[in-house]
Amino acid sequence: MTVKQLSLPELADACGQLGITNVGLWREPVQSHGLEATAKLVRDAGLTVTTLCRGGFFTAIDPKERAQALDDNRRAVDEAATLGTDVLVLVSGGLPAGSKDLHGARERIADALGELGPYAEERGVKLAIEPLHPMYASDRCVVSTLGQALDLAERFPAQQVGVTVDTYHIWWDDTAPEQIARAGAGGRIHTFQLADWTTPLPEGVLTGRGQIGDGAIDMREWKGYVEAAGYTGAIEVELFNAQLWARDGREVLAETARRFVEHAA
Amino acid sequence: MTVKQLSLPELADACGQLGITNVGLWREPVQSHGLEATAKLVRDAGLTVTTLCRGGFFTAIDPKERAQALDDNRRAVDEAATLGTDVLVLVSGGLPAGSKDLHGARERIADALGELGPYAEERGVKLAIEPLHPMYASDRCVVSTLGQALDLAERFPAQQVGVTVDTYHIWWDDTAPEQIARAGAGGRIHTFQLADWTTPLPEGVLTGRGQIGDGAIDMREWKGYVEAAGYTGAIEVELFNAQLWARDGREVLAETARRFVEHAA
Repeated sequence: MTVKQLSLPELADACGQLGITNVGLWREPVQSHGLEATAKLVRDAGLTVTTLCRGGFFTAIDPKERAQALDDNRRAVDEAATLGTDVLVLVSGGLPAGSKDLHGARERIADALGELGPYAEERGVKLAIEPLHPMYASDRCVVSTLGQALDLAERFPAQQVGVTVDTYHIWWDDTAPEQIARAGAGGRIHTFQLADWTTPLPEGVLTGRGQIGDGAIDMREWKGYVEAAGYTGAIEVELFNAQLWARDGREVLAETARRFVEHAA
Repeated sequence: MTVKQLSLPELADACGQLGITNVGLWREPVQSHGLEATAKLVRDAGLTVTTLCRGGFFTAIDPKERAQALDDNRRAVDEAATLGTDVLVLVSGGLPAGSKDLHGARERIADALGELGPYAEERGVKLAIEPLHPMYASDRCVVSTLGQALDLAERFPAQQVGVTVDTYHIWWDDTAPEQIARAGAGGRIHTFQLADWTTPLPEGVLTGRGQIGDGAIDMREWKGYVEAAGYTGAIEVELFNAQLWARDGREVLAETARRFVEHAA
């Protein structure tokens, strides 16, 4: 998504030129390019798919909507398995229209995880609940902190459900370092993502994630917490940024790789 | 601030017509109207000033800036005393330019409170740290949760430093109810404010606070937590909302009073 202006073949080619061997993918471009075609593309390019984004949106009350969401998430698990990644990132969903019941919404997420977890485990895929910044609590994700995400994840086996640690969403939280340690001790850090915090936030607050190094977050500090918790997996850079999307994708990818080395490596 | 389109005399008159006897004031309109003139205005109108907003902005590193901030906060305390309110609301300040050190910024707030607290107590004014929503952590307030605010406040006597409980900033936080109980047990709930959470957020995320009843927050639930914690003071409605500001102020004030009765009384 950081360089969504690139097609998947362009992305694979640009990764090859930069020596990048890992890539996190989103479902929409994979579906556009074709699932099997994408699996072949990354295989042929020597790329490892680190995660697939995203499943989730489990908070509907209507039984039909809930069944549809579960069906869609089973497809997402299947897609992850086909792409050869063992992690499906979950954005859990916001409040249903008219509801003010955060607690109930979080319980419906747990219900869905209970159904989806075993299905995913059978296919070698782990679910990674991503706590999203509290500014998304009403409309995208009622799971706002790593503590809440772990409270949910720990109801299930770690090989079924863990968490996504993303600097953008948790950097403000002074309890997050201890929650990272808790997640690591339980083997539940399923992926680690970087984005920087920059202001002013754009309208809708979806497309303002800062390039690494441009904002308020000390990337090495957070990498240190995650490594101290035992995480040895890939580190993803996931930027939703309208200005980056408007630029040449290969240039943005090269810049992102440089910034990663400068601020996090 | 909810009806900042009204002059203070217009506000006093509108409150009188609606039977509103309490009002929270901001420093800028008070200074424009004149401090002594405002004190006389509210006295003559039979209005009680519940709080003065706002002191704070304590996070500067530069010694000269820090001294200026403390001077300004002493003036704010004096203004509060002159207006007859015993509460000065504090917005603590964001990260200094180029800094990524949230912990250090929070410690500088504690340093400032240590100097300002006794000055305020001598004048009968309590300082109320307001945790602001985490989306303001970098540029307005590094105190993002009620827990953080209490960790700071509890270093000082309750008659010097307590907290502001504002639904807009804490509604997403499942630990906030227990923190409200903690604050109440310590006699540290110095004011309670209502605003609703609506989306999409506007650019800059400063002027999108929803009218009571328009958004995701169950006002009675939060009022219940605060009352259970022993709070018996005034309840303020504080909306920063460009659409409300563009309307007739008296009409907005009347609407707000109706919404308060409907959703919180």
